[in-house]
Parts: sequence; C-alpha cells; structure tokens
Amino acid sequence: MKMNALHPIFYPDSIAVIGASKDQTKRGFRSIQKLVEDGFKGAIYPVNPKEASILGRVAYPSLAQIPGKVDLALICTPAKTLPDVIAQCGAKGVKGVVVLAGGFAEAGEEGRALQDRMVAEAKKHGVRIIGPNTSGIFNTHALANIVGFSHLKPGGIALLSQSGNMALSLVTEAQANGYVGLSTYVGIGNESDIRFHEYLEYLRGDKNTKAVIAYIEGMKDGRAFVDTLQRVTREKPVVIYKSGRTSAGRSSAQSHTGALAGDYAVSEGVLKQAGAILARKSDEILSLAEALSLLEPMVSRRVAVLADGGGHATIAADTLSERGLQIAPLSDSTKQALAAILPPSAAVANPVDVAGGTDSNPAVFADCARILLADPGVDALLITGLFGGYGVRFSQTLTEVEIETSERIATLHQEFGKPVLVHSLYGSLYADLRPKPLALIRERGIPVYDSLELAVRCLEALADFGEARRRPLPAIDTRRLRSKQFESVIAKCRHEGRTVVLEHEAREALESAGVDMLAPALVAGTPDEAVRAFHTLGGVPVAIKVVSRDIIHKTDAGGVKLGLADEAGVRKAFAEIVEGGTRYTRTHEGRDPDITGLLVTPMAPKGGIEIIIGVVRDPSYGPVLMFGLGGVLVEVLKDVVFRSLPLTEADARSMLGEIRAAQILEGVRGAKPTDKDALVKLMLGISQLCTAFPEIAELDLNPVLAYPQGVGILDARILLEDEASVAALAH
Amino acid sequence: MKMNALHPIFYPDSIAVIGASKDQTKRGFRSIQKLVEDGFKGAIYPVNPKEASILGRVAYPSLAQIPGKVDLALICTPAKTLPDVIAQCGAKGVKGVVVLAGGFAEAGEEGRALQDRMVAEAKKHGVRIIGPNTSGIFNTHALANIVGFSHLKPGGIALLSQSGNMALSLVTEAQANGYVGLSTYVGIGNESDIRFHEYLEYLRGDKNTKAVIAYIEGMKDGRAFVDTLQRVTREKPVVIYKSGRTSAGRSSAQSHTGALAGDYAVSEGVLKQAGAILARKSDEILSLAEALSLLEPMVSRRVAVLADGGGHATIAADTLSERGLQIAPLSDSTKQALAAILPPSAAVANPVDVAGGTDSNPAVFADCARILLADPGVDALLITGLFGGYGVRFSQTLTEVEIETSERIATLHQEFGKPVLVHSLYGSLYADLRPKPLALIRERGIPVYDSLELAVRCLEALADFGEARRRPLPAIDTRRLRSKQFESVIAKCRHEGRTVVLEHEAREALESAGVDMLAPALVAGTPDEAVRAFHTLGGVPVAIKVVSRDIIHKTDAGGVKLGLADEAGVRKAFAEIVEGGTRYTRTHEGRDPDITGLLVTPMAPKGGIEIIIGVVRDPSYGPVLMFGLGGVLVEVLKDVVFRSLPLTEADARSMLGEIRAAQILEGVRGAKPTDKDALVKLMLGISQLCTAFPEIAELDLNPVLAYPQGVGILDARILLEDEASVAALAH
Repeated sequence: MKMNALHPIFYPDSIAVIGASKDQTKRGFRSIQKLVEDGFKGAIYPVNPKEASILGRVAYPSLAQIPGKVDLALICTPAKTLPDVIAQCGAKGVKGVVVLAGGFAEAGEEGRALQDRMVAEAKKHGVRIIGPNTSGIFNTHALANIVGFSHLKPGGIALLSQSGNMALSLVTEAQANGYVGLSTYVGIGNESDIRFHEYLEYLRGDKNTKAVIAYIEGMKDGRAFVDTLQRVTREKPVVIYKSGRTSAGRSSAQSHTGALAGDYAVSEGVLKQAGAILARKSDEILSLAEALSLLEPMVSRRVAVLADGGGHATIAADTLSERGLQIAPLSDSTKQALAAILPPSAAVANPVDVAGGTDSNPAVFADCARILLADPGVDALLITGLFGGYGVRFSQTLTEVEIETSERIATLHQEFGKPVLVHSLYGSLYADLRPKPLALIRERGIPVYDSLELAVRCLEALADFGEARRRPLPAIDTRRLRSKQFESVIAKCRHEGRTVVLEHEAREALESAGVDMLAPALVAGTPDEAVRAFHTLGGVPVAIKVVSRDIIHKTDAGGVKLGLADEAGVRKAFAEIVEGGTRYTRTHEGRDPDITGLLVTPMAPKGGIEIIIGVVRDPSYGPVLMFGLGGVLVEVLKDVVFRSLPLTEADARSMLGEIRAAQILEGVRGAKPTDKDALVKLMLGISQLCTAFPEIAELDLNPVLAYPQGVGILDARILLEDEASVAALAH
Repeated sequence: MKMNALHPIFYPDSIAVIGASKDQTKRGFRSIQKLVEDGFKGAIYPVNPKEASILGRVAYPSLAQIPGKVDLALICTPAKTLPDVIAQCGAKGVKGVVVLAGGFAEAGEEGRALQDRMVAEAKKHGVRIIGPNTSGIFNTHALANIVGFSHLKPGGIALLSQSGNMALSLVTEAQANGYVGLSTYVGIGNESDIRFHEYLEYLRGDKNTKAVIAYIEGMKDGRAFVDTLQRVTREKPVVIYKSGRTSAGRSSAQSHTGALAGDYAVSEGVLKQAGAILARKSDEILSLAEALSLLEPMVSRRVAVLADGGGHATIAADTLSERGLQIAPLSDSTKQALAAILPPSAAVANPVDVAGGTDSNPAVFADCARILLADPGVDALLITGLFGGYGVRFSQTLTEVEIETSERIATLHQEFGKPVLVHSLYGSLYADLRPKPLALIRERGIPVYDSLELAVRCLEALADFGEARRRPLPAIDTRRLRSKQFESVIAKCRHEGRTVVLEHEAREALESAGVDMLAPALVAGTPDEAVRAFHTLGGVPVAIKVVSRDIIHKTDAGGVKLGLADEAGVRKAFAEIVEGGTRYTRTHEGRDPDITGLLVTPMAPKGGIEIIIGVVRDPSYGPVLMFGLGGVLVEVLKDVVFRSLPLTEADARSMLGEIRAAQILEGVRGAKPTDKDALVKLMLGISQLCTAFPEIAELDLNPVLAYPQGVGILDARILLEDEASVAALAH
C-alpha cells in the first residue's frame, strides 16, 4: 500500500516550533514542554532568534540553521509573518506545518488575501498546511501532541473537529470515562490547503485508528468528503456530528466560522448514504465511536435483552422499539433452556427478566448470555440492570463471582461474534467507586453504560452501520450515459438562449433515461392538431397544458385545462389557454409569449398517492435527489429525504422507507400497496439522467402519482445551468 | 393545616420489624442495622418469638408484648401470614405497615384472594398498607430508611416508584452525582390499600419535599391521580416517567407487574394537562427533578446563551430551537454593554460568544451574566463551554477567580430571580476531579451539566412548568350542566333499549351544550317530507343520510347521498337509501332495519380543513378528548393529542398547537388561517356535554371541517354506556 502523503506529518521524526518561547503561558513554550513530557522520540527544534535554549533544547535563530531535517513545523508566529515563514519551511524541506494564527480568510477580505499568498507559497514549495486558525493536532501513537490537551489516553478513536471547544469536550469526556483512548486529533481550521476529506483519507490508512469522529460545521468540498467517506466507512466507522441543524444554529455557526452550513436534511441524507453514523446529540458522540470501535456491526436488528428487574426490561423494550430495533423473538429451545435455570417467576420471553434468579449467584448472567447468544434469531445482547453491582448491593462476596462472570461474558462475546453491551446502574459510579466487574468487562472490550437509552442508541448505530456496509456501492458508469435526444435538446436550448427545458422536451429526456411515462403526450400547434391528438390518444378525457418558455407557472397563467372529453371542449380549451397565456405574459412582461404549442395528454387515473421527486445542485454536495410525499406533508411536516447522486437501488429503496409517513406507501384504509419497484425505477432513471447531464441545474417532478401498478408523472420541469456555470463545473 | 393521615407513617416515632432476624442477608436484619446506623431517633422493636435480642435491641415474641406504641411496622414474614399479622397490628394500634412479601394479586387468583383478606383486616382495624410486593420506603429527614438503600444524601426530591430497580438506579445516580439529595421514597407495590395519588397528596404537604419523581407503569385509579396531580403541581414540580410507551414496552410491563399500561399518548396528554413534566428518557429523570427543585419556573421561553466557543454556541442554538425555546433577541443596550467589555471578535448577539474574552479573566463571565440577566427580554441564562475549568485548562491561578465568579453568578441568580444553568465540559469530571468553582456554584443552587443537551432539556422543563402553572384550573360546575333535551334523549334510548344515539339526537345534544352546528338538519320520514326539507333549507344542494339504530356504518350501507340539487334527485336518493339500507341490514342481520327517517342537510362548503374530535372513556383516566387532523395524518402519523375532561380554554388552545402539523391551522399555501376560536368553542362544548353526562361512552365528530370562519360538523356519533356501567360509575 502506498503511504499517504500526510503520514510523515502525523508520524514526524522531527518537529520544529517556530516562535518558540520561554513564556510559560505561550503555545511556543507549552507545546515543547508537552512533547518533552510525553517522551516524543524524535528531534525537537525550538526556533527563536533571541534565545539560546528553551527547556534544555538548543534554540535555533532560524529554520535554515537547524542541522537535521524537519518533518513538521508548529508555527506560533502572527498571521502577517506566514508567507515568509512558509517560504522558509519550503526551503528547509518541511513536509507539513500547523498554523495556529487567526486573522486569515475568516476575518475578512484582507485576511483572505493573506491566506491566498500563504497557500501560494506552500504550493510552490510542496509544503502542506494544517489550518490556519487551528487549535493544532496530536497523534498519541507517535507521542506527538502539539495541541496541548492533557491526560490523553492512547487508543483507537481519531477526531477531526471544526471547533476547538468541542474537541476539548470530547477529550475531557474520554478522560472522565477513563476507558476511551484517542489516536489522532486535527483541528481543521480554515482548510486553506489540506481539506477535510484528505484528513479522512489519511485516517483510513492509519493502522492505529479504529474509528473516526468528525465535528462538522460546513465543508469546503462536500462532494469530495462524501466520496472519501464512502470508501472509509467500508473499512472503519465514522461518527459525524453536523451542527447547524436549525436556522438558529446555522446563523450561529456562520457568525463564528464563516463556514457554509447547509440544510441539515440534505447533509443527513447524504452522509448516511455514504455510511456515516450521525450523532444528533453532542453527548452521544464519544459513546457511539466507542461502541463502533469495540464491537462488530450487527447482522440484522434483532436484540435480546437480559434484565434483572421489570423496570429496566420495560424501558429497554420501549426504547429499542422507538429506535427501530426488534425485540428478537426467542426460539422455543432458547426459552426452555432459560426456564431450566431461572426461577418460575422469571420471564423467559424477550425481554428476559431473571426475577431474582441472579441475586445469590450472578454467574447465572453468563449462563443466560450463552443461551441467548446461541439463538440464531439473536443478533446482539443487551444486559441491563444491576450487573456488576451485586457486590455493592447485596454482598461483597458476590464481587468475585461477578468478576468471573465478566470474564465468561467477554469470552462468549468473542465466541459468538455478536455485539454484547452492558447497561448497569452502577455504571454511573466513576473512577475509584466503579465496581471492578464493570471495569474488567470494559477492558475486555464490552462497553458499559450508565444510561439505558445510550446503550440502545449505540445498538441502533451498530445495526445502521451493518446495514450501511451491506449496501452496494454505486456503479460509476452511469455518468457516461448521455442520450443523443437530450444532447440535442440542450443544444436547442443553448441555441435559443434559454435555460428552461419545455415539458415535452423534459418528457423526452426522462424517456431516454428509461423512465416509463405511463401515458403518452402530444404537442399540438393548432386547435385542429389538438383535436387530432385527442383522437389519437383514444378519445379519452385529456388534460391540455401550455408549452412556452415564457410561462413557467402554467396554472397561474390559466395554462392548464383538465378533463376535456370531447372535440368542442378541446377546441374551447385551446382558445382559452392561448388567450389566457397571452394576457398573462402581456400583463407580467409587457409582451406576447412565445408559445411552442399545447401538450395534450390523457387524464391520469384517480386514486394514486401524491409524490414529489426533485433534484437540485447542493452548493456543498453537488446533485442531490429529494423524495417525499406531496401535499400537506411536504408543506408542513417537511417529510422528505435526500441522497446524493448517483443513486443505487438500495439507496432508492431506503428513501422510500425513511420518510415518516412511509406507511402510506404500504396501503392504508384498505388501499393496495404502492408500486415501489416503479418508484425505485423512476428514481434511478432520474439519477442516471442528472448524473449523465451535469448541465441540469434542477429537475422537478411534482406531482408524481404512485399507483398500485406504475407511476404517473403529472408535471416535469427541468432547468439547465447557464453555460458559464457548466464551463466552471467542467474544471 | 390538617396533618395528612400518612404523616405518622413517614415520620414514625417507633418502628417494629416483624420477622426480625439475625441472618445478615435478610431484610429482617438489614433494616434494623440500617436504622441503627443512620441514627433513627425513635424506638426500634424487633419482633421474633425465637430471639431474645437482635443487634443489641430487645426482641419481642409478638407485637402485643411491645411496651410502647408502634407507628410503623415493617413486615418481613411470608404472604400467607399477612391477614393474621395485620390483625395483630390493628390490635396494637399500628398506623401503617410495609408489606414486602410478593405472592398476592400479581401472582394470580389465589394471591388476589389473600390480598383481599389482608386488606379487609386492615380496613377493619384502620391500619394502612404500603405494598404488598414493595421494596419498602424511606424518609431521610426522619432518619427512617427501611428499604436498605445506602449512601442516601438527605434533600428535597421524593421518589414514588413501581420498579425497585428504577428506584435503585435513581438513588445510585444521585450518589454518583454527589449533589442531589432525596427526601422520601415509596415502593408503590400492588397498591392494595394506599393508592398512588394518596402518596402524592401526602408529599404535597411534606415540608421536606421540594419536587416529586414518579415512575409509573400503570395506576389503579388514574383519575384520582390526575386530580391530585393538578393540585400538587400548583405547589411543587412533579416529574413523571411513564413506561410502556410502545406495544413492546407495554407487553413487557404487563408481564412483570400486572398493571394496566394504557396508550402512552393519552397519558402524555392528561399528565401534562395536570402540570406534570414528562421525562421520556430514564437518564433525564433525576436532572429534571434537580433543576425544577432548585430553580424558579420560567416566565416565558426566551433564553440567553453565554458561550466561550463557537461549537457550544452553535449546538446550544440548535438544541434550544429544536426544544421549542427561543434564542432571546437582545436589546441594543445589552449588546452595547457586552461589546464594551468583550473583544472585537466576540459575538454580542445571542448566542453570545466571548471569543477569548474570558481566557485571562473568567470574571468577565459574571459581568456578562449581569448584563444578560438585566435584559427584560431574557427569561433564563445558559452558560456553556469551559466555565469552571479555566484553572484546569489554562492556569491554576485562574481557579480563585473562577470561585469568586461562581459566587457572583449565584448572587445574580438570586437578585434577578431568573433561572441560571451552567453547562461545563469539566462537569463530566466527578468526585475529586471536579473543579472547585463548579462544586461551589452547584452548592449555591445553580445546576451544573456535562451534557449541553441535558441542560437545554432542563430549561425546556422550566419553561413548560411555568406555562403549566399559569394555566387556569378547570371550573368545576360544568359537571352539573345537564340539558333537559339530552336527558330526554337518553330516557328515550333507555326506553328503546339502545345505546346508539341517532345523528339528529346527537346534533340536539351538541346544540344544547352550546355547539354551533353551522348548518341546520331536518329529519324526513317520506320522500315528500324530504323534498319539503330541501325547499325549507333554501333549495341549495343537500346531503341525505339514513337515520337508523340498526345502521352504524352508513356509507357501507349506501346510506349517504351527496350533492342533491333538485327535487328529482332528492326523491331518487330517498328511495335508494331506504332500499340500500334494507338490503344491507337483511344481508348482515337477517331482518329489516328500523329506519327512523332520513336526515337532510345542506352540503358543507368546500375548502375546510379536515379534523377529528372524539371523546372516549379511558379505563384509567376517565373521559378524555382527542383532537387531531383528519385523513392520512391521523391514520399514519397518529398526529393526535389527548386531554382529560373537563377542558379549560387554555387546554383546548394548547391542543391546537401541540399536533405536529399545527402549522396547517395557521394557513399554508396561501390559505387563510382556520377559525381557532370556533374550534376551541366546539371542544369546550363537547367537554361540557361529556362531563355533564357520564352516560356518554363515546362521542365521535368525524370529520369536522374547520373554515376561516366557523366549523362544520359533517358527522356526529354518540354511544351511551349500557345502564349497568352507568350504575357502576355512580358508585
């Protein structure tokens, strides 16, 4: 495997500190102190023209005078010095620099210009920049901590953060917890040179990193991040907290970092699609990463609960249900085996309640755990209640039994390869108070929770991660499927200087991408042609709609007539639509509209479910597809989901299930289920079209009617990028 | 104030332990040990015929031989001994007993009979029973702990629980936390004698209890509980965790306790209406009670956030928004005052980010806090970030400054009488590691959180509690408003041996309760009468519906015809309805229907919003009113809310705002807002009717159409209790 270019920066043989200081409050002092304290094995070079030595290390007046090579430089000098300092780093062959100073792009125009000059210098010399405006980086496995966080326990969790405080929160939480260890930290800062996705790609190859946490406010290149994320999550779990979910949060994020925090629903859909686990609460981030780094993803969503009291059993059942996990039905032989070792009052259906059966002998927990894990219908085991605290609660003598039981459960976890999680009410006791059996079982790789809800949340993440990994990756070649038909439509639009694709052209485009339009449509230029179209379509009731580059809002312009069932009606409608459209355009634009013709199409059958499908170009992630139920649900409840393009079949299917009102598609009030295959096919066709044609700025199918068999597209609207944007996209 | 009858039980002068033991693993030993350890001031009387003394206390062969009076007896003997033991307690004048044994009503028929005998004995002698099947009780302020929990810190939070394990969880969490103190605990057990609401009423008067936690699986008398709750929450906050939210949870709860756990949505509505704060997660229960016991309820929902970093500011803004709290807009003078003491890069709009302005001097936190609390647009202050840990993070010398700052902030909290909450990432450090400034500020009455989400959740509870306390209590006299009209309808139904109230009778009932039916309706017995009705109604298009005690599902029986605009249509419809109804009843019941007539009513105007309003008698809470939007929203999203009757105007209004799709009532897609006053009036009318007439088993208005002016009731259905049930209700 080729070594990632960032590897020497995170595993440096030598570190220079530019702007080293004897002032104990300064980063130029404290970072050297920390490196020395931690026992960094490589060379440390303080750089300061005014000092001979700092902390017993020779200080050099300049980088050039350092005798050995320098892999990494920590730059503590002010913003304005940076272009020069970077040039010196380049001359010295420094591979990467960490720039702490603020006052760059985040501070306005002048800062942006300074940042551009700094980056230009770096590119010239092949120096990579972390930051500026970063809190720093660390790698516990290289003993290289130049961010200054104390009490770091080395471990498998890496942390990429756009907030120094959030990083400090997580590091402090890990310290308080006492078990979670960290591998690498990067304060992302301004992403002036190294981008978010490059750090992620580096961590994919870092053998000391088992799981990644990313705290994101907004990214410079969301599309590249998602592409990288998709690769990384095949190998390692990535937990993302995306802030700015609400408009209040977004405006706060913008005032602080200048990062563009887009619509959360888009990020949520796109990041999940790429296999990330999304934390929605900052207090669950670390626990999610811990569970995902310790345990295997679940094969399916069926959980066995082993409780020693009704209260916890009930809360576990409620919470598992609410989180979309299943209370695994146990096999008869499992129930019999449990009944054989538990008292008669025990509940041997899931959730299992030992009902006092462990009070005098907690080893029964391990016996029950073996029986439950051996059931092929069980994908994970949650132990909840007092386990680990029998020695505290009942008799000190039980502690020894519990320690042995912890060992046995840990062995069972290995043997069956299914996740085991322990919730214990004694898990809330920290440090010296924490019961030994809980400390031991955690050391053996089984996470311990004092919150039952958090334990269930982690189970949900293990199930979601399992599902994400089983989803096939999108095929790449869809990008090349450009149909001749739509090529020529685009050419015609360009020629006519319009970005609006007319409805009949949009229909052609969809058909060329394999979308079944269900009903044909004919364009009529005269009333006679409209009548002919009416007969050609079989004389069934038709809808007639205006086709004009000048009339986008057809209904407002009186440009839609429905249910026309005879020749007279068709002729009357034709006249009224042309008249109405002309009046509307004269009123609004002071000129006559360019009317291409009128679209004649059979009325859609009644009874379908109203759906909206659209594609927009997200400023961060590129083209994303939205799926939702139409009408009031979209309007008020915003019951829509997003995915980035291209879409896989699995992506499309998961979208159908993810809207809150998903049950409607299954058929309610005696209605037949909707034709999901047809919906999926439609979404894949749209994905193909919009992936193949980056010229499409927006696509809107609204409404689509989904029937028990097939789907009908009642209106199709495509808007092209203007030519300048397309040229820019091609770069 | 009259002393509550349970007072002597919870503040006993003397405690007998029946079934006292020398076996150290037995409750009969450990409870005595605990009382002695804790320094219980009253007399302790072990009762055991085989021992002379236990733990240095004289043991008595029987209760009768105890020289002094006995207030409270802990009974550790097996279930079958209980009727006798209770009789002995009665003879001795014992006021209350705690019965630990299981094997009563929860264990089947035989146990139920035993329980009934025990309760009969108790009633005969005036002895009150806690349990059976209880873990026990404690009162830290009386040093009376007969449940055996260790490390109890006396304080203001009382705990009523139907799960011993959940109680132990909360007690252990309080111990780990180190600050939260408990007053009283009751393991509710089987509620054989003392009911849930009696404990609650007792706690209302307990001067040592500042807040109550109730863990509820199901109650024997939900109605009495709610009535009591309504009184208690005027004086003290009550935090309720109601388990069995999902069907999985309910089936788990039922298998464990035999308690009836009803629909969570009903409990949620009814308990909130009575002023309770509902915890939805077991890990937030204690923190909610802590915050509510320490802080005053909020006057409105406007929160100021004071942060020392962008990450936390953004997460706070997101989370506050999601919880329905407002980021208080700050006045110009507030912003100016903040700008005067903070660096230029600080954000002085809410959320306030000091942007390093506190790094060298955390006292600036107190300066900012004063400015923010003085703003009349701010109802509460949330401090988030590193506060309390500057000494840990930056320089030990700052700890002293932070301690002073904590003192100042606590003083400001007193001065302004607005809630102040501190989230600190150093809050996750427990026990010896916890920074002193955080320990101090907590001692001064300001809660400290390591989870920002939890801090916001507690703010939400303070806002909700404030709102609940401002809501007026329901007027009582509605129960007496029995209209003569509906009295006679009921008499007619009884006479005819039916429980179905016919539609025109239901309309009369509603009108008599002041409900405006918008459109009149006439009952026609013949086609001629129908035509006459059509003309009387003004010759506008009408709907005609069958009126028959035998045809409940009118549409299925072809019993509804719409939009009849002329005489011929009316006649045809009449004939078809009678024919269809007859055919339907013959097919389904093998006889002709009793058709009272046909209801003729003008067609409802188009364009209203479909609504469903219903009343059912909940087995636990009595009559509850449901409000929701009709159609697919009710069907799939279960977007409905419940309240118990009688309803206040404030209750009705809060229901309109609580459904998820509430925005529809405000008018979407250019529609005018719905006439909320008319909806409220309708709900109050229904409340009055159903409160006055306990004979009503069910009432269903579906659909109701809500217009910009007025509401139209398209169908009204009332079902009466059968006479036997009414007789039972009267008891």
